[in-house]
Amino acid sequence: MAGRHSTLNIQHSAFNISLSSLSTPAFLVDRNIVEQNCLRMRARALSSGVAFRPHVKTHKTIEIGQMQHGGAAGPITVSTMAEAEFFADSGFGDITYAVPIAPEKLPRAAALAARIERLNILIDSELALRAVEEFHAANGTVFDVFLKVDCGYHRAGVDPNDPDSARLAMAIANSPAVHFQGLLTHAGHSYNASGIEEIRRIAAEEIESLTRFRAILGIDDLTRSIGSTPTLATADTFADTDEIRPGNYVFFDAFQSTLGSCTRDEVAVSVLATVVGSYPERGQAIIDAGALALSKDTSPDHLDPNFGFGLVCDVNLNPLPARLIALSQEHGKLATSVPLPVGTRLRVVPNHSCLTAAMYDRYHVIDGGNIVDEWRPVRGW
Amino acid sequence: MAGRHSTLNIQHSAFNISLSSLSTPAFLVDRNIVEQNCLRMRARALSSGVAFRPHVKTHKTIEIGQMQHGGAAGPITVSTMAEAEFFADSGFGDITYAVPIAPEKLPRAAALAARIERLNILIDSELALRAVEEFHAANGTVFDVFLKVDCGYHRAGVDPNDPDSARLAMAIANSPAVHFQGLLTHAGHSYNASGIEEIRRIAAEEIESLTRFRAILGIDDLTRSIGSTPTLATADTFADTDEIRPGNYVFFDAFQSTLGSCTRDEVAVSVLATVVGSYPERGQAIIDAGALALSKDTSPDHLDPNFGFGLVCDVNLNPLPARLIALSQEHGKLATSVPLPVGTRLRVVPNHSCLTAAMYDRYHVIDGGNIVDEWRPVRGW
Repeated sequence: MAGRHSTLNIQHSAFNISLSSLSTPAFLVDRNIVEQNCLRMRARALSSGVAFRPHVKTHKTIEIGQMQHGGAAGPITVSTMAEAEFFADSGFGDITYAVPIAPEKLPRAAALAARIERLNILIDSELALRAVEEFHAANGTVFDVFLKVDCGYHRAGVDPNDPDSARLAMAIANSPAVHFQGLLTHAGHSYNASGIEEIRRIAAEEIESLTRFRAILGIDDLTRSIGSTPTLATADTFADTDEIRPGNYVFFDAFQSTLGSCTRDEVAVSVLATVVGSYPERGQAIIDAGALALSKDTSPDHLDPNFGFGLVCDVNLNPLPARLIALSQEHGKLATSVPLPVGTRLRVVPNHSCLTAAMYDRYHVIDGGNIVDEWRPVRGW
Repeated sequence: MAGRHSTLNIQHSAFNISLSSLSTPAFLVDRNIVEQNCLRMRARALSSGVAFRPHVKTHKTIEIGQMQHGGAAGPITVSTMAEAEFFADSGFGDITYAVPIAPEKLPRAAALAARIERLNILIDSELALRAVEEFHAANGTVFDVFLKVDCGYHRAGVDPNDPDSARLAMAIANSPAVHFQGLLTHAGHSYNASGIEEIRRIAAEEIESLTRFRAILGIDDLTRSIGSTPTLATADTFADTDEIRPGNYVFFDAFQSTLGSCTRDEVAVSVLATVVGSYPERGQAIIDAGALALSKDTSPDHLDPNFGFGLVCDVNLNPLPARLIALSQEHGKLATSVPLPVGTRLRVVPNHSCLTAAMYDRYHVIDGGNIVDEWRPVRGW
């Protein structure tokens, strides 16, 4: 795997070529910005005295996983079993699989749990607990379990105000089949906020929901684990919580900068593209980056309904008066008020870096306009 | 590459396992339906006496590329240079790269053209013609060229009613640097049609635009190449054209069946998923297939604005009273009026099979509820 240990020997890298020689579309990662983003979040976690378990689903690479922990293979959060196994293979031994587990995945999870220090799995239903207990009865595995709590996002998780939720929690606490490690929530609704004030209000609810629910349960040693990049990136410090799980902050994206989670200079990624069609008579152009090169998430429509499918910039990341108005499989359609002749190179800052990064088998790592490395993410499930 | 020649020895396949043992999410391809879809389109092309150059971008596999031609490695259309090279490596020697070429890709295209019988490239601007001519002057390569014509979709292509377009065509015709092979158009706006009648009107324009433009040029031996799955799948026969390039028809999808390009029984693909969260108190559930397992294209919003991110079915493909109302990276959120307990297996018919298929490193090929093979698509650019 190319570039795995590249941070050690970058002066001798074979990748020291110019951006202009790269074939398009290509996914560019600015190493210095990723490093700064990683340093800043980790420093705030350390100074707040909370455990730091960053999510790796945004980047899916060993290189950035280590960067998130200042070079170490520290505790991480994953969104697929493939990620869990990939990072375990590189020495990451403390992993939370933060999607409610499907019963069919228990054998695979047990095999992984047996070879690392800790695999936390997530459940939020009596049926899932029963599946874990049946697996325990048949195989002896004692899983480390977090209970997923819904702090208002209404995707997964139990309602902390529902007495049934406390009953499920107590059933987990009393089950000999599991170790009840903690409560986990994700304030995904912070992505729909209209500004920093609303994000901070959601952040307070995210924290408060777990503290309140834990008090109801009366189990003081349950870890309270929170995490969404908007709520964490806009906080000065982390209080009244035990663990944070930010993910998108390593790259950020056009969505996060529009929302106010970061500045535009803190966005670490872009898609390099080439203009392949130019139609000045209708104020349009076509680039060779379509839905498969950019993914199709929109910007925060509630803040800027005309943003388009990414921020269109020149090769130096200066925004252009052009909007990506449509994506088909391999074509990106621009409405532009400046001429963009065929052959022009552009960079598009993606709306949602997690989904865009996942379209690529390799990332081109840049430093000062040169390709200095190549990182390969894990794929699939 | 597993399963490459599997159609020859399927009785002895190692993949003869049950669907219920498959880990989710998984991309399922019904072999019999793909074969029927391939047979039907090819038969109509042959009986109409038009050249058949199907697109392979929907499936990106050698297996289906051969199926499209009744087992042979016939003429194909591709959307990336990676597809062109992948199919060339398996004996496909007559390829049209149907995206306007970026000047930076000419060396790679020339290298491919030198090792196969025919590589047609696409241009639609004087700048691109100049780049091809400069490449010819430096390297001697004589490219086979199609001129992209805009028949109303307004993505790429020259306006056939603009005198500048005829001037560009004549410049191509008179250039010693290229062989002018033909005119190519794509009626992508047929996807926005409101029914069969409108699709047929667009199909007529698609054909007519090339015939009229060729008459203006007075170059009778230019191939007129058309292609969009809605306009081709709803035609009884193909007249007044020379070549068709359908692609999506091999799989079809929920979009095409809603639009009327196919019946629901003709859709060959689905994503197998597992319910991982169940919230009957709010009429919702979560599956382990999110944006990375399904892609985020919507249905034809103009026909059914509440369709959601795919058609939700049980494991036997019977539609359920459930809608996929949101996708995040690895979660699909369902609004459902029936209980869907944790562990329930579902199949989601994707809205846009081209984008969904491209999310997978392998396809699970099914026949009567069993996995009978595994096909691997080419990825990237």
